[in-house]
Amino acid sequence: MSIQSAIAALQPLFGDRLSTGDSVRDQYGRNEAWYPVTPPDAVIWPETTEEVATIAQTCNEHGCPIVAWGAGTSLEGHIVPVQGGITLSFDRMNKVLDVHQEDMDAVVQPGVTRRQLNEDLRATGLFFPIDPGADASIGGMAATRASGTCAVRYGTMRESVLALEVVMADGRIIRTGSRARKSSNGYDLTKLFVGSEGTLGIITEVTVRLHGQPEAMSAAICAFDDIEGAVNTVIQTIQMSIPVARIELVDPTSIRAMNAYSKYEMKEGPHLFVEFHGTEAGVAEQAEIVGEICAENGGADFEWASKAEDRNRLWRARHDFYYAIKAMCPGRTGYNTDSCVPISRLADCVMESMEDAQRSGLVTTMVGHAGDGNFHMGYMVDPDNPAEIDEAKRLGERLSERTIAMGGTVSGEHGIGIGKRKFMAEEHGEDAWALMGQIKQTFDPNGILNPGKVVPGN
Amino acid sequence: MSIQSAIAALQPLFGDRLSTGDSVRDQYGRNEAWYPVTPPDAVIWPETTEEVATIAQTCNEHGCPIVAWGAGTSLEGHIVPVQGGITLSFDRMNKVLDVHQEDMDAVVQPGVTRRQLNEDLRATGLFFPIDPGADASIGGMAATRASGTCAVRYGTMRESVLALEVVMADGRIIRTGSRARKSSNGYDLTKLFVGSEGTLGIITEVTVRLHGQPEAMSAAICAFDDIEGAVNTVIQTIQMSIPVARIELVDPTSIRAMNAYSKYEMKEGPHLFVEFHGTEAGVAEQAEIVGEICAENGGADFEWASKAEDRNRLWRARHDFYYAIKAMCPGRTGYNTDSCVPISRLADCVMESMEDAQRSGLVTTMVGHAGDGNFHMGYMVDPDNPAEIDEAKRLGERLSERTIAMGGTVSGEHGIGIGKRKFMAEEHGEDAWALMGQIKQTFDPNGILNPGKVVPGN
Repeated sequence: MSIQSAIAALQPLFGDRLSTGDSVRDQYGRNEAWYPVTPPDAVIWPETTEEVATIAQTCNEHGCPIVAWGAGTSLEGHIVPVQGGITLSFDRMNKVLDVHQEDMDAVVQPGVTRRQLNEDLRATGLFFPIDPGADASIGGMAATRASGTCAVRYGTMRESVLALEVVMADGRIIRTGSRARKSSNGYDLTKLFVGSEGTLGIITEVTVRLHGQPEAMSAAICAFDDIEGAVNTVIQTIQMSIPVARIELVDPTSIRAMNAYSKYEMKEGPHLFVEFHGTEAGVAEQAEIVGEICAENGGADFEWASKAEDRNRLWRARHDFYYAIKAMCPGRTGYNTDSCVPISRLADCVMESMEDAQRSGLVTTMVGHAGDGNFHMGYMVDPDNPAEIDEAKRLGERLSERTIAMGGTVSGEHGIGIGKRKFMAEEHGEDAWALMGQIKQTFDPNGILNPGKVVPGN
Repeated sequence: MSIQSAIAALQPLFGDRLSTGDSVRDQYGRNEAWYPVTPPDAVIWPETTEEVATIAQTCNEHGCPIVAWGAGTSLEGHIVPVQGGITLSFDRMNKVLDVHQEDMDAVVQPGVTRRQLNEDLRATGLFFPIDPGADASIGGMAATRASGTCAVRYGTMRESVLALEVVMADGRIIRTGSRARKSSNGYDLTKLFVGSEGTLGIITEVTVRLHGQPEAMSAAICAFDDIEGAVNTVIQTIQMSIPVARIELVDPTSIRAMNAYSKYEMKEGPHLFVEFHGTEAGVAEQAEIVGEICAENGGADFEWASKAEDRNRLWRARHDFYYAIKAMCPGRTGYNTDSCVPISRLADCVMESMEDAQRSGLVTTMVGHAGDGNFHMGYMVDPDNPAEIDEAKRLGERLSERTIAMGGTVSGEHGIGIGKRKFMAEEHGEDAWALMGQIKQTFDPNGILNPGKVVPGN
């Protein structure tokens, strides 16, 4: 009954699709956050749901932890095997299984990435709008309830996942939800697995909603004198129910990094990046109204990117922001926060948090999916300097407390992983967090599924 | 340890807010479906969350069932106390506690009805769009994951509930979710309670999303030669991503009933009722496109209701449909179905089901929130005629099997209650349904919360 006995039992079944080699383990022990390299004891590349079920059943019998791994882009250490065990890489379960064009949905394996799905959809007139910065896997995005720049219009993975196939801890394979657009048929197991970060089951198939490619799109950037004017523009736009497709807040430091990395020449001030989707007339009308709101709040230089290549370049720069900031601060890693507050508190929360960060002396960035009330501060720390990490942690803790006090959540879209577990009791209350622990215990009594994450206990 | 000992323990605490009188029990033993009157042993009217917690704790100790009761409008017998016990009426917990105008949300007690909330919101420029036919309570709507005619645009209670306060079976009070628009912070307890039909906890406070009252609205009815033309119009409208606010399918029998009950003179053929929300220009553009689609599919007489009073009258007639059909068939009760299929299968499912019903000889109606792929057949039965009830059951069972075979759900918005439990294993699979049972066991180990509903077992 051990990790090694589980590996020994699985080795003959998977051959060279099971590796215990140091370089592979090291690769799967890395993470995009600031956690030290923590290699698993083995990595397996399953090719079918049945193989995943066999792995789960074997690991359950041997008490061996399993960590599901999509594209490794998580920012909260979800994929760090803190108790060792087997990392399950979905590299080979990366097929788009079905696109139902009339019903506007797609069925994919968990290793399919968001860009891969959109490539596949190109000829259909449909697209998948959920876009975290990195080219994340759809299985991982479902598991972390990811979102991105388009959530203000199209929702998050919470709204996008219609149905799942899940392997339970004991190897049973279940299906949740259906391709029907709504349902009041029993407990919403789909929504329970979405965001459970691999702790309740292993997602082996995802059915996602798609949307029609809009007839017309238009994007613009607008510079502001101060952050407050930009935030107030966002608030007024949302309150007027303008169906803006994207409305992103970017601080001056981030603009500087993007200018360097993505070859832009934007003015080094706070910016909004906005995008409109709709009919030709609808897009023009939305743009006009938002343009007026910008001007009333001190926005200037409303620069349009109407051509597809200009728009793509703009959003590519926004999505590459994290790499841009790392390039600007060599050797440093972002300690990233993920607050989401009711929109009436957005200006207060952003302003207080930026002032707090400025006092620390750390290079700090702030970008936000401001239409959702969600923003990310990034404190750039030297991972080998404990004093800086401690300072970032203190800033992050104060931000989390401020966020909770304002009625928000400390995780808008990055999930809990390792980093946010310490705020769970404060945000949810001891009893509600304990209830999550009871659900975990019911689904995974031996605690083999991504242990050390989300719920109370080890 | 019994129902009577629980009532005896609670009597001194609630005085005349606890009733065991026959007429009260009879009133709370009735239901809007075709189930026989089944009175609870007592009815209590709590006024605070703490009182609900006391009731739960006492009932948990004594093994006494609790059924939460909002407005009693459920169509699947959710409120029928099949194992006796105490019915908890939320008549006195009916206050709108807070409206956050800037954040576009409201916090309400469970007994607030949807019309009451919208009255309260009238001056704010906001509205609550979820509209089941009856003037249901928001607590009940959350508990059954209700929707209505506007779901195609604004989603269902699944998308509308941001946060809850819930009393657990043992009397603990928890809060789930927050007023932030999105969150990836742990298991989605909110979505787990939404649709759990009072079997996992008792909802004592609901925070719902609101929407801006559109600048312009326009509604129309359109008669078609056949159902197929109407359904194809719906499918094409959705596939073109027209953001239609409502698109309702009504069959000729239902039109006849509405004409009589609501004093209309609509042609006795299949109809679509549509509504557009947006800016003046946007509404005009949507209406033009949908008008063209209608014409291509044999629709004629696109009659406009642009004035508010005409629109309200139209939707009132649609919402009163169930009363209209009961008035047309005195002494009969509707055996109602609630299929929701992927939209590509909607025409097939509707046509096959109508043909099947026509062979039965029962008066049958069909109305549908067709934009979601959701439609309701109503078989009008004499509740004292077992042969007719059996015939309706057979029709409903064949419809359910047809729906599941087409990848849909047997409950689009009415919930499971008593009536749909027999299809759960078929739709979800034995293992997934068993998992729902395990969740129930974890949350309510003594089985006091609305027993006999949703999950396997008694």
